[in-house]
Amino acid sequence: MAEVDNKQVIFKRYIDRLPEETDMEIKVSKIKLEAPKGSGAFLVKNLYLSCDPYMRGRMRDFRDSYIPPFVPGQPLEGFGVSQVIDSDNPDFKPGDLVSLITGWEEYSLIHRTEQLRKIQPDDIPLSYHVGLLGMPGFTSYAGFFEVCSPKKGEFVYVSAASGAVGQLVGQLAKLHGCYVVGSAGTSKKIDILKNKLGFDDAFNYKEERDLDAALKRYFPQGIDIYFDNVGGEMLDAALLNMRIHGRIAVCGAVSQQSFSKPRGIFNGFNLISKRIRMQGFLQHDYLHLYPRFLEDVISNYKQGKIVYIEDMNEGLDSAPAAFVGLFSGKNVGKQVIRVAHE
Amino acid sequence: MAEVDNKQVIFKRYIDRLPEETDMEIKVSKIKLEAPKGSGAFLVKNLYLSCDPYMRGRMRDFRDSYIPPFVPGQPLEGFGVSQVIDSDNPDFKPGDLVSLITGWEEYSLIHRTEQLRKIQPDDIPLSYHVGLLGMPGFTSYAGFFEVCSPKKGEFVYVSAASGAVGQLVGQLAKLHGCYVVGSAGTSKKIDILKNKLGFDDAFNYKEERDLDAALKRYFPQGIDIYFDNVGGEMLDAALLNMRIHGRIAVCGAVSQQSFSKPRGIFNGFNLISKRIRMQGFLQHDYLHLYPRFLEDVISNYKQGKIVYIEDMNEGLDSAPAAFVGLFSGKNVGKQVIRVAHE
Repeated sequence: MAEVDNKQVIFKRYIDRLPEETDMEIKVSKIKLEAPKGSGAFLVKNLYLSCDPYMRGRMRDFRDSYIPPFVPGQPLEGFGVSQVIDSDNPDFKPGDLVSLITGWEEYSLIHRTEQLRKIQPDDIPLSYHVGLLGMPGFTSYAGFFEVCSPKKGEFVYVSAASGAVGQLVGQLAKLHGCYVVGSAGTSKKIDILKNKLGFDDAFNYKEERDLDAALKRYFPQGIDIYFDNVGGEMLDAALLNMRIHGRIAVCGAVSQQSFSKPRGIFNGFNLISKRIRMQGFLQHDYLHLYPRFLEDVISNYKQGKIVYIEDMNEGLDSAPAAFVGLFSGKNVGKQVIRVAHE
Repeated sequence: MAEVDNKQVIFKRYIDRLPEETDMEIKVSKIKLEAPKGSGAFLVKNLYLSCDPYMRGRMRDFRDSYIPPFVPGQPLEGFGVSQVIDSDNPDFKPGDLVSLITGWEEYSLIHRTEQLRKIQPDDIPLSYHVGLLGMPGFTSYAGFFEVCSPKKGEFVYVSAASGAVGQLVGQLAKLHGCYVVGSAGTSKKIDILKNKLGFDDAFNYKEERDLDAALKRYFPQGIDIYFDNVGGEMLDAALLNMRIHGRIAVCGAVSQQSFSKPRGIFNGFNLISKRIRMQGFLQHDYLHLYPRFLEDVISNYKQGKIVYIEDMNEGLDSAPAAFVGLFSGKNVGKQVIRVAHE
């Protein structure tokens, strides 16, 4: 079989700062569009790739984490939606659609089937399988229901609230009967939070000189649940505004520029006086709940009770900029790269 | 009835730094040794007073905490063991021994009976009712069993390990089948931890230039449970050494000199990657467990499976220095003031 061009986004070097476009490069290599006999692998055409903030953790030269670092000279990898083209695995046949961990390239040879799901034909947009129905959506679900221990009527604050995770957290909290306020960094996002995602209120943190004062304004009675996607200064301000027995789900720290020199957290005293539970989590500890999650969210989506905002970039060439943009909040909603049309 | 002298330790002024002896003064006032008719109160002679680090929180001019600040010009107050002298309350009669919140003075008129327990005659030292069987002991019990979710065989680290709370945490953890290492600030305390309290190992944190390296030496496999009594730098080092799904019970921050300018915590990233639960707590949220606690601990004490180290100061005059000494680790074991002999 003839080889074809395979455009790739190559990871160039380890960093301990915010990613820049020059940490990646576009390269074209060659690939045979077949799964080698006896390999048990299958070959996919990548349709959608997910840009997620956690990926910068894989750009560090640090092996003691839950996921290994990227390999310099190799394509980045992440969640994606792909179509099987050729298969040496009896469970997958050409035409099958899968959500999986795949390479940032046009075609990938897939050996591992962990965290891989076959997508059944449905009227839900395919790209939602890396967002609403994928890792970010499930992060919202597991984090909100399993970590936050929410009760009806509680006051919930979500930072990075229009992002891939935050937007669903807020909607789940509303469906659960909570009062929900979100923060984000542009007036467009604030408008989306209030008018499309159904948050009770929202504010632009970039327009607030004093985050503590802002939270006191939006939560005069205090915060029961803080779903933290940003860390740093906002987390510190939230600690000052938590209610007794409040819970903080520590999901991400996208505000932090560096792993080795983070801004400190100074208001930890509140943990004791307010008996706060602050808990880090990763969605993959809760995978036993995935079927229930899919059922719940798909049902709510089909009834129009949940919506999902995507920011779709076209083509692999746009991937480095889209990924880098996550850390300055350039994306409006879940950032996805469309590699090829379905 | 004639008035008698009532020596008192008066709280002088609000502070936001470590307490100093001059923040208190000894004064002698007069008191009638009777409970006014119709008051429902009773008059006690204070026998033992408890010096506890949390009390400095009451020296701040800060009303938004779980306990109100001290009143300048009035005696300090805290846990104590006292004997009823006169009573206008039918539930208490002269001669009764009680553990309660009382004034730092020779005699106190007691109006409130919350957090007050009658002490049944027993062969346990009376002063243990402000230590092993009192608030600090119950803090250890509730914190270890309810907050730390311990499992047999887990690796437990306790800071300020020879203190009022730490010493019981370590012993409970040993009885539960855990591997326990404690830290403290003098070689005498390290000796007590290893040879009297049964810790598996112990180290003097003041002799360690690199706390992270010290913890890696004592916990090559990492820490499942960190019972944090000190906060600050040690908490940050522990965060680096927690195992996946580790738990941190945030009990105190005695290392911190100031509430308004604490040292920051910089290693919070580990909360996510290791899925750590970090939880502040106060013993009084768990008072429903107090009867079970008393039964368990008294039984273990009587079987010689639990011991308790006290640092006993004689006389109210010694109270300010004893209290201030808590914050430099001068006390060896639970700091108590003997106000009067039984």
